[in-house]
Amino acid sequence: MIVILKPNAKREQLDGLLDWLHSKDITVHSSVGANHTILGLVGDTSRLDIDLIAALDIVEDVKRVQEPYKKANRKFHPEPTVVTVGDARIGDGSLTLIAGPCSVESEEQVVAIAKAVKAAGATMLRGGAFKPRTSPYSFQGLGEKGLEFLKAARAETGLPIVTELMDLTQLPHFKDVDVIQIGARNMQNFDLLKAVGRQEKPVLLKRGMSATYEEWLMSAEYIMASGNEQVILCERGIRTFETNTRNTFDISAIPVLRQLTHLPIVADPSHASGRSSLVAPLAMAAVAAGVDGLEIEVHNDPAHALCDGPQSLRPEVFESLAQKLFRLHDCAAELAEDTREEGQAK
Amino acid sequence: MIVILKPNAKREQLDGLLDWLHSKDITVHSSVGANHTILGLVGDTSRLDIDLIAALDIVEDVKRVQEPYKKANRKFHPEPTVVTVGDARIGDGSLTLIAGPCSVESEEQVVAIAKAVKAAGATMLRGGAFKPRTSPYSFQGLGEKGLEFLKAARAETGLPIVTELMDLTQLPHFKDVDVIQIGARNMQNFDLLKAVGRQEKPVLLKRGMSATYEEWLMSAEYIMASGNEQVILCERGIRTFETNTRNTFDISAIPVLRQLTHLPIVADPSHASGRSSLVAPLAMAAVAAGVDGLEIEVHNDPAHALCDGPQSLRPEVFESLAQKLFRLHDCAAELAEDTREEGQAK
Amino acid sequence: MIVILKPNAKREQLDGLLDWLHSKDITVHSSVGANHTILGLVGDTSRLDIDLIAALDIVEDVKRVQEPYKKANRKFHPEPTVVTVGDARIGDGSLTLIAGPCSVESEEQVVAIAKAVKAAGATMLRGGAFKPRTSPYSFQGLGEKGLEFLKAARAETGLPIVTELMDLTQLPHFKDVDVIQIGARNMQNFDLLKAVGRQEKPVLLKRGMSATYEEWLMSAEYIMASGNEQVILCERGIRTFETNTRNTFDISAIPVLRQLTHLPIVADPSHASGRSSLVAPLAMAAVAAGVDGLEIEVHNDPAHALCDGPQSLRPEVFESLAQKLFRLHDCAAELAEDTREEGQAK
Amino acid sequence: MIVILKPNAKREQLDGLLDWLHSKDITVHSSVGANHTILGLVGDTSRLDIDLIAALDIVEDVKRVQEPYKKANRKFHPEPTVVTVGDARIGDGSLTLIAGPCSVESEEQVVAIAKAVKAAGATMLRGGAFKPRTSPYSFQGLGEKGLEFLKAARAETGLPIVTELMDLTQLPHFKDVDVIQIGARNMQNFDLLKAVGRQEKPVLLKRGMSATYEEWLMSAEYIMASGNEQVILCERGIRTFETNTRNTFDISAIPVLRQLTHLPIVADPSHASGRSSLVAPLAMAAVAAGVDGLEIEVHNDPAHALCDGPQSLRPEVFESLAQKLFRLHDCAAELAEDTREEGQAK
Repeated sequence: MIVILKPNAKREQLDGLLDWLHSKDITVHSSVGANHTILGLVGDTSRLDIDLIAALDIVEDVKRVQEPYKKANRKFHPEPTVVTVGDARIGDGSLTLIAGPCSVESEEQVVAIAKAVKAAGATMLRGGAFKPRTSPYSFQGLGEKGLEFLKAARAETGLPIVTELMDLTQLPHFKDVDVIQIGARNMQNFDLLKAVGRQEKPVLLKRGMSATYEEWLMSAEYIMASGNEQVILCERGIRTFETNTRNTFDISAIPVLRQLTHLPIVADPSHASGRSSLVAPLAMAAVAAGVDGLEIEVHNDPAHALCDGPQSLRPEVFESLAQKLFRLHDCAAELAEDTREEGQAK
Repeated sequence: MIVILKPNAKREQLDGLLDWLHSKDITVHSSVGANHTILGLVGDTSRLDIDLIAALDIVEDVKRVQEPYKKANRKFHPEPTVVTVGDARIGDGSLTLIAGPCSVESEEQVVAIAKAVKAAGATMLRGGAFKPRTSPYSFQGLGEKGLEFLKAARAETGLPIVTELMDLTQLPHFKDVDVIQIGARNMQNFDLLKAVGRQEKPVLLKRGMSATYEEWLMSAEYIMASGNEQVILCERGIRTFETNTRNTFDISAIPVLRQLTHLPIVADPSHASGRSSLVAPLAMAAVAAGVDGLEIEVHNDPAHALCDGPQSLRPEVFESLAQKLFRLHDCAAELAEDTREEGQAK
Repeated sequence: MIVILKPNAKREQLDGLLDWLHSKDITVHSSVGANHTILGLVGDTSRLDIDLIAALDIVEDVKRVQEPYKKANRKFHPEPTVVTVGDARIGDGSLTLIAGPCSVESEEQVVAIAKAVKAAGATMLRGGAFKPRTSPYSFQGLGEKGLEFLKAARAETGLPIVTELMDLTQLPHFKDVDVIQIGARNMQNFDLLKAVGRQEKPVLLKRGMSATYEEWLMSAEYIMASGNEQVILCERGIRTFETNTRNTFDISAIPVLRQLTHLPIVADPSHASGRSSLVAPLAMAAVAAGVDGLEIEVHNDPAHALCDGPQSLRPEVFESLAQKLFRLHDCAAELAEDTREEGQAK
Repeated sequence: MIVILKPNAKREQLDGLLDWLHSKDITVHSSVGANHTILGLVGDTSRLDIDLIAALDIVEDVKRVQEPYKKANRKFHPEPTVVTVGDARIGDGSLTLIAGPCSVESEEQVVAIAKAVKAAGATMLRGGAFKPRTSPYSFQGLGEKGLEFLKAARAETGLPIVTELMDLTQLPHFKDVDVIQIGARNMQNFDLLKAVGRQEKPVLLKRGMSATYEEWLMSAEYIMASGNEQVILCERGIRTFETNTRNTFDISAIPVLRQLTHLPIVADPSHASGRSSLVAPLAMAAVAAGVDGLEIEVHNDPAHALCDGPQSLRPEVFESLAQKLFRLHDCAAELAEDTREEGQAK
């Protein structure tokens, strides 16, 4: 951490700061310039509160050198984390498809979709039982009943289930769920993060609509610091000035997070775009960029299409897309392999 | 609501849509152009899910004409809502100052600050007991103990207290709190909104970091639809590309919300700016723009400044600012009065 | 275009509006609801100024149904435009690589890089002679001399050259340039757009840092309306709240523009990311999303690395990447072919 | 400037960097930590290109301590710059009103508006002759003829004129203009900045739609570095995710720029909001925040309202607003005066 002092910093105030830092086992190197004095702080600065130091009268600015997350940090854990769920091994270089309806509507619906997506190569079933909706007048999901239907679909197909937890009070119903999803709107619901951090099952953590990579990793850190290291990160688009797409899918998140963290990274092209016609190109792009998995919405009943989101694919479209995604993934993997061999040959 | 059909919309699909709309008591006017057919939907469209209609194959685009919020909508409730808390009447044209420490640290601290801000003209005391922090390693607040200290300060000064609720499970401890604050990160924690909607006390609802006015009002609508109409909206800055200030204080929110809703509007210049030197000019601006109240952070102990945010003011600075704010508010009120008289004289 | 009237619109004002619209050959359909009257405008609304209508006292809102661009609009020109430059045919389904140094520094440098990128499969040479720099104290490019060096490299390798025009007064020096690049900062320099619209050579139009797709296409429309229909669009990242990457590469621009326009689309992963380690994954993603070409920065002299941007690749890295990009493009093309055949078989 | 080295930085590469820095008269202090080595660079770092250093293999990150602008920097020029135009002294603590039509349409129109705004207290006349329009099909302004009409209005009223220069080639027509305006879309048209930097008249520099404060000041620096130090900065709203207002008026720009620069700061509430009903509250807020002047759009002919923007005020509304603004400014000035006296009394 670097602290830049104001030109007129008083000696006694500076001494107060230095004493406080030493009491935290931080070593300080000073560098005195014509206009500014700069303090270089060495030690475990991840526990220092940057805002508190910035608050001091004598401080002009504070900048972090080291990332504030530790457990999620690739620097301290270079090997990729692999999260195993049923037959899926997310993070081991394979491509996992997680598919299913936006909202669970009936047992028939979710069982039918589960069979279809399994046949197409998906190894996990997603579906919303508790639905976060912007309007109090919109359908809020089937709740517990929806969870039952998901479990019925699992019993039928063997696909593990992923579904969103919106509130601590719903936790008892999630005992038998395979992966808990934390939605974008709850990415900084810190009590919820701590609670899922105490569970012994994987958590799929969606990026908040305006969360930086660092904030997102700090939310993963909340879960990990509470004891649960099985965290899967999910990019689902961020909010920008462009309104043509529902969100702006931040493809860079995939390679950047690969550098910053050892946690697996999946992407949700359905919510990122908000339009079914964009799901395929964004999914292809994510695979080419090196994603570990994709979460894709599939609906099955055109007659009831009014109850599906505009970003859902029909099963036959999903099946065709899944094939392309696996073949593209093979192709990209082969190219990466060649690059490695080339590197070794040199 | 306006529905724009694709050029090649099939007759049978269109009939399906029209039947469904009629079953919802919606009247439809068609307007057929060279390239597009446009449907004008008339009736109570606030209960139609815009995404569901947009999902239809035959639909190119859907646009709302009427706002999706009803209870919060000024069109259906032209008179301003006034929320009464102790001596404060928020929304009646007066200026309410809500002041106190960012975090509650000790009984002495919060009592001392409460006395100081009361002397300066504040009529409500704010203070954080449960603290939402980006890092799991940062101080998370004193929790229940913090609430006790706030109540002690209330007993001492008579100032009603405002403090943040982060999770449903904390609700039992908030029975004796005067105003429940919902923080920016929880603005779309819908279960929490429903829960505070069932309480019989005012709720101060902060704007989410990347929430539009409409989403913010929809969150207010959640609270109101659950039975609690005492909602105070609080602008606290939005996330933009500019990083010099912690957030970008959206001053336009004040006059725009005044047009859209009857709910009172306060502003938090401390969090919006993240710097004490900006609190005074932003507070002055908010008063000139017609705000109903201001929430301002005050700390009291320079020796422990490390525990206060960089945006907090010292009591003597707050006192001087409060005087200026009240005088500016008087001046602005007088100017508004003259305008009204002028209008009547014409 | 749809015009939503205020509830209290006066009859005489409405008649004034209707007369004015009729004088513009616009037919109007009215739809009268309980709270609003909606006018559906049918005819050539692309020449109506939406802001002027919105300014009227009686108008609550105006919404476009039809895009305001015509020449760039795929609806009126379904076949893709192919721009031919030397051996490159941009827009015909092939992948064009445009590579070269950020800044032209010397004849040796640019000739050496040109040879290297040609050997790697690039068919166009890029290089900056006139450089837009945020600071007046930064190197502003070699100017005319830089253009001479680029031409020397073209003479040596046969690669056509692409370089940025910053101002009308530089135009005489661009007579012999193959493709004129308009930079992000000049995307709405309308006099410059009109001027390149009068040239008889292709224009590569970069997206402005905060330009919507519609504004970008309107800038293309400026060039086309002035007579030059050879416009290549280039996505180079947009400005968002995320500061880890220099810009946020908007991968969705590729499939969305494919739907909106017939113009070819290339991407610049170097500027989008600002980091060499991100160039490869973003380039791979763009190819998978269906881009027509890529503009990539290559530098050649590690000893003078101080003069190259942090996003430049060394020639040997570019060569290896180019191979992967072509193979990935083949793979994606094959998958698309299969999909087409599958579609026909049905 | 602070340079953070990668953990595995090679000695020879580091020596290369150190030699290069010394050749630029930069002194370097090193601070070696467990994970990182940090270099503190002392000297005139404003001429170092931060991107070039960041490009080095051995560098993990570079952070500026000192602002990259010098002539615009308050640190090196603590006294406020006052720009004198006719009777207006912008930057001396007074409030200057700059008013006039969005577009110049006829001599009668602009003369009538000029008389009205002068009577209301404006001391400068604004009006667009060359108009930057998003669409090539929109009215592009009267050009030279428009300038003539503005000059006629000046002859009639004595008000100095402010009008926008869009391109270098128009410069000869601006000899007799009092203040040259550079629009938001041209804020980083660097050749245009250099050209107005060689003129001997004030320049009103609007903030770009997505420009940071630093980029904006760097554009001012371009003008100043070319010899013209009479620069007036104009906040006109930035682009964010909120679409209710045309732009988000960044009120914080006023107090932040006051700290960063000695240049005068004006605000344009008309373009910031895009709605006439928001002009008054935003103008009031800007005055309370300490702005030096306001640029406000006024139109005069309701019968031709179709040709005015939705954000224009009628003369009688402007007159009433101007009175309120001057009275609010007096009130705010008085409060500031009291604060100063209070400070001295202590």
